[in-house]
Amino acid sequence: MEKKIFLSEKEMPKAWYNIQADLKSPLPPPLNPATGEPITPDMLSPIFPMNLIEQEVSTQRWIDIPDEVLKRLLMWRPTPLSRAYSLERFLGTPAHIYFKNEGVSPPGSHKPNTAVPQAYYNKIFGTKRLTTETGAGQWGSALAYACNQFGLELKIYMVRVSYNQKPYRRIMMETWNGKCVPSPSSHTNAGRKFIEKDPEHPGSLGIAISEAIEDAVTSKDTKYSLGSVLNHVLMHQTVIGLEAEKQLAMAGEYPDIIIGCAGGGSNFAGLSFPFIRDKIHGKDIKIIACEPTSCPTMTRGHYLYDFGDTAQTTPLLAMCSIGHNFVPAPIHAGGLRYHGMAPLVSKLYMDGLIEARAYNQLETFAAGITFARTEGFVPAPETNHAIACVIEEAKKAKEEGKEKVILMNWSGHGIIDLPSYDAYMAGKLQDYALPDEEIEKLVKELDAFPKPGIAHSS
Amino acid sequence: MEKKIFLSEKEMPKAWYNIQADLKSPLPPPLNPATGEPITPDMLSPIFPMNLIEQEVSTQRWIDIPDEVLKRLLMWRPTPLSRAYSLERFLGTPAHIYFKNEGVSPPGSHKPNTAVPQAYYNKIFGTKRLTTETGAGQWGSALAYACNQFGLELKIYMVRVSYNQKPYRRIMMETWNGKCVPSPSSHTNAGRKFIEKDPEHPGSLGIAISEAIEDAVTSKDTKYSLGSVLNHVLMHQTVIGLEAEKQLAMAGEYPDIIIGCAGGGSNFAGLSFPFIRDKIHGKDIKIIACEPTSCPTMTRGHYLYDFGDTAQTTPLLAMCSIGHNFVPAPIHAGGLRYHGMAPLVSKLYMDGLIEARAYNQLETFAAGITFARTEGFVPAPETNHAIACVIEEAKKAKEEGKEKVILMNWSGHGIIDLPSYDAYMAGKLQDYALPDEEIEKLVKELDAFPKPGIAHSS
Repeated sequence: MEKKIFLSEKEMPKAWYNIQADLKSPLPPPLNPATGEPITPDMLSPIFPMNLIEQEVSTQRWIDIPDEVLKRLLMWRPTPLSRAYSLERFLGTPAHIYFKNEGVSPPGSHKPNTAVPQAYYNKIFGTKRLTTETGAGQWGSALAYACNQFGLELKIYMVRVSYNQKPYRRIMMETWNGKCVPSPSSHTNAGRKFIEKDPEHPGSLGIAISEAIEDAVTSKDTKYSLGSVLNHVLMHQTVIGLEAEKQLAMAGEYPDIIIGCAGGGSNFAGLSFPFIRDKIHGKDIKIIACEPTSCPTMTRGHYLYDFGDTAQTTPLLAMCSIGHNFVPAPIHAGGLRYHGMAPLVSKLYMDGLIEARAYNQLETFAAGITFARTEGFVPAPETNHAIACVIEEAKKAKEEGKEKVILMNWSGHGIIDLPSYDAYMAGKLQDYALPDEEIEKLVKELDAFPKPGIAHSS
Repeated sequence: MEKKIFLSEKEMPKAWYNIQADLKSPLPPPLNPATGEPITPDMLSPIFPMNLIEQEVSTQRWIDIPDEVLKRLLMWRPTPLSRAYSLERFLGTPAHIYFKNEGVSPPGSHKPNTAVPQAYYNKIFGTKRLTTETGAGQWGSALAYACNQFGLELKIYMVRVSYNQKPYRRIMMETWNGKCVPSPSSHTNAGRKFIEKDPEHPGSLGIAISEAIEDAVTSKDTKYSLGSVLNHVLMHQTVIGLEAEKQLAMAGEYPDIIIGCAGGGSNFAGLSFPFIRDKIHGKDIKIIACEPTSCPTMTRGHYLYDFGDTAQTTPLLAMCSIGHNFVPAPIHAGGLRYHGMAPLVSKLYMDGLIEARAYNQLETFAAGITFARTEGFVPAPETNHAIACVIEEAKKAKEEGKEKVILMNWSGHGIIDLPSYDAYMAGKLQDYALPDEEIEKLVKELDAFPKPGIAHSS
């Protein structure tokens, strides 16, 4: 039995899978917060190039990957699918655990799967410069990599707490020619509003998004790029699941359980969407999105219309949210601290097609150490949430004596996050409880907005 | 044309290539410094297990890789061979540049190729605990990874300047259960001798080796493990070249030029030795070992008998050396700061089968940035020496209008070394010239020892 299953470059998927084609009811549209009316594509055109806006609203099932994008993805794709034999042995489980190793990309995560096409579509549209936000820095470095490949300028607003905790990510962005500043910054009105109150404001993804959007709409030949949440972003990630499907078939397997961590939702979507299509058509698969207890957008948030950012500059999105004014605790899984969940992932959750579970920081690091000491590779703190769930399900399979096939997205390596492992091993990390009252208060602020309809799947 | 050439796990080499079988004259033996007589295998037994000593002196051409080792190597091997199309385009060269990506291993370099078999052979020999030294931390983290896989304890003496510069490597070692201390330390007589003079002594690989050996010979069930220099270590690395040979053949190519950086010599040997066999049998290949100008063991050192360590605890080895009392400048390529060169690599150099070139620190970082901005992956500072040479040769091919096939060992990624890129981009790095007088002075101290004979190849 093979340890790793490789696809040849010829077997790389040639089209992205667009789950909007298979939804039982359409996604509730983004709304104009002023009017409550659905926004139209042209209203997004100051922010995004029209070719990406078209992808955002498309319901075409398969969208061809352009050759220039494919060529760049081949710099590290197809990624290996590995069987976690050592972890299985350690747990004494009859489960077959497979992990899709997205850590082999140059920036070390799944993020360049969408950064490369976004840079490409902007390039052919005529954009000269992009802006974006980044939390842990995975997204910012991925977009820096992609913009460098296509000769676009890039400015990255990085959540200050991560900017301070993770200087390596900033250096990586600069190595690829990106310009990175801590957010909130003095470069935008949105940023100045926060640093006037507190010059050392820790920042949040919501604030950083506001800054990046303001910069994009007020600068020449500049567009904005988002690393998660939006439909086209999630669609670009489906190469992960499409590859995994072929690789599992080569091993004669099909997943019983699919697991991914979920911040904005893109790596989870990338692995699971091609399989959710099967589930919609009758396959029995358990699909679990894993989030931190300190930012429990699905497990404890509400499904409602909320802003994508703190400064309320985005359209209203129908999503599971704990409110755009949420300021996250400084957990090390910086990529999982967003107040909302991708509209597509939120809808699938509300439709009962996927489950969600929340994990405490300490148990996720314990899971990460177990993984590193069995399978060798050191996972990102975000990825540790998925691993905690894998271990939970593998133990359950052991109790039940069932040979379950578990597929997880190993969304990134943790080499840049090693100081968080140091803190964990030294007993310096803690869990953060989010009181119910706080969620209720944050969500109450959204009472004035329309509520998205929920279509229950049969 | 494919970007990456993968081998299936079935195509993984099943035996190591031992170049000692093909040398025209035998390697000059290690000598007992007290008597000047060749040392015998049993004299090495306090330091190494007998099964590895047998490999060290073996002249058998192929040595089978044990199944338990193969299984562990498959956690990341075979590694991809990538064609550097973007770099070729950037340079406008007709050369075909291939890089063997050894950065995909869990510790991020070629080092676990020998760490895994060394841990395995110690395990079956009955060793309970290993000691070692590490410079940049690549070797220490690789051995921590390997010892963790086989349930051995490990203590690592890490050169203090790197310990301070690279905390991430220490954390990586600890994540894999290794115990890491800065060297010189207060834990050994060899270490205390140096820190009594200077508590902040920057350390050197030579000193760290002395500490690790002293610890091994004075502790119960403990052996010592070395990450480079020795014959069996270089042999374990030949999986790199054996894989590359198959991969190039799949692309219908054969190398005109082979390039690797060389500190102790193991990654260079791993890629080049299988091809040197062809060269011995008549193939026309240029094979270049790249070293820093600040530690020019081949380009400016002498071929003589020298100690492997500063405290003069090892046997005398016949090697190119700038003397065991050499204290290297604090360049960021920590793995290239060893005073000597592997006896096998040194002999091949003296026999005229390989060339050597030295590069300044600044030009190697410029080369690394060029690589990161074309091929995406950020290289280790050591690897940048090989890249500088690749660029030089690719430009020469352009001038000559020749479609040369260049094969390089991309020995490791530079993610943990990002602060050195930060310093380079900020103009804070410098070159270090090593005056001739200093080399002469260091080498003169060895006048009393025998001189190894040099057999010129015909």
